[in-house]
Amino acid sequence: MISKTKLKELAAYRLQKRQDEEGLFVVEGPKMAAEALAAGAEVVCACATAEWITGNAWLESGDFYEVSQAELERLSLMRTPNQVWMLLRRPKNNVSPIAPHSPLILALDRIQDPGNLGTIMRTADWYGVRRIVCSRDTVSCYNPKVVQSSMGAVFRTSVEYVDLPQWLSDCGLPVYGATLDGERVERGLAGEQAVLLVGNEGRGISPEALAQVTHPVTIPNLGGTAESLNAAVAAAILIDKLIG
Amino acid sequence: MISKTKLKELAAYRLQKRQDEEGLFVVEGPKMAAEALAAGAEVVCACATAEWITGNAWLESGDFYEVSQAELERLSLMRTPNQVWMLLRRPKNNVSPIAPHSPLILALDRIQDPGNLGTIMRTADWYGVRRIVCSRDTVSCYNPKVVQSSMGAVFRTSVEYVDLPQWLSDCGLPVYGATLDGERVERGLAGEQAVLLVGNEGRGISPEALAQVTHPVTIPNLGGTAESLNAAVAAAILIDKLIG
Repeated sequence: MISKTKLKELAAYRLQKRQDEEGLFVVEGPKMAAEALAAGAEVVCACATAEWITGNAWLESGDFYEVSQAELERLSLMRTPNQVWMLLRRPKNNVSPIAPHSPLILALDRIQDPGNLGTIMRTADWYGVRRIVCSRDTVSCYNPKVVQSSMGAVFRTSVEYVDLPQWLSDCGLPVYGATLDGERVERGLAGEQAVLLVGNEGRGISPEALAQVTHPVTIPNLGGTAESLNAAVAAAILIDKLIG
Repeated sequence: MISKTKLKELAAYRLQKRQDEEGLFVVEGPKMAAEALAAGAEVVCACATAEWITGNAWLESGDFYEVSQAELERLSLMRTPNQVWMLLRRPKNNVSPIAPHSPLILALDRIQDPGNLGTIMRTADWYGVRRIVCSRDTVSCYNPKVVQSSMGAVFRTSVEYVDLPQWLSDCGLPVYGATLDGERVERGLAGEQAVLLVGNEGRGISPEALAQVTHPVTIPNLGGTAESLNAAVAAAILIDKLIG
């Protein structure tokens, strides 16, 4: 049971701004809830239907409420809310508990689409790339659509927001930049450390960040008709070429 | 100017069913409208704001109406409708006017997410893969979200819906299937013809289609923590490995 007052209080977290102010984020559905618990995320509050509660041992810690489907709908941002809604605390400095040991660091310049960032995080997770460094105007990794499309990668990657041109200049590593007129990637990194930089969906890498690219790379346009690749697809192909 | 009756009549095409029945589809925004015109698509009807009409020569053929932003909003499925809405006729047999000469044919088994299918079509277009063969329960390539996320690939790829296991059995080509326990792709096709089969987002390739796979292939899970890759990402990486 949940009181009307409490439900109203929690529904306020539908606003991203409210989550940002308090350093919290939301996951929804049994899959993401399981990922959160497995990752040891700090659960501030959870609301779930009877269906989820049956067969889930997690009931002790934090604030927990059984809710009806209608109540879940008031909290959820999804079209069909699925059993469980959890409010989690963002880790300090957003550094993953998994040590970053991949030779590749991913740098993202102005990625705007939440689905793209989530998918890039999911791909990074698959390839063991644990560190993602973003320009400050890249979409927040705690945007609900990013969280959901990351498929749990939000718990296993470290996402930092920095002055990207400055960071690239300071990092002292080779910077591979995804461009439309670079070289084909002929061989992988073979263990050397490097940065892969991917730019905005429509506008690519900003001039300031591009100035820090040491290896402009391109995925050859074999068809000759398409204008570009989706940013998450381009990132995936280049990650695979460099460390796959 | 558009009459209230006409606007109401056109707004009925917001329903996918209505488009399906009449063999039509909708594109929105200047970019997609330009792609449609460049591809020589048959425009059944177009509605555009003054902004689009200025600087666009296309005004002669088909039914054309100047509309206000509010009227455009009544037609559009987008959150922020952008200048132009076009109702197009689906090509007969949905065969692209561009001859399919790529060594690779893409086969899709039960892809459900419109964004994934659109992104896969866009990637195929980039690599010059012109023929996509889908199981009958794959999402329609004329779904509005597919059309928009294909970024014009809907005009440059041929998408067929077939009895997929039967088609795979009849095609007489090697079938590479994306699985979680196949072999790593060690070398590209080097010009031989083949089929790449990609399965459903959550459930993968159906047993019936899997029985037709001659080369089960896998993208190694280097991180060891993620459960899977996004279907459009997996398709892209495998297309690149086979013909990139």
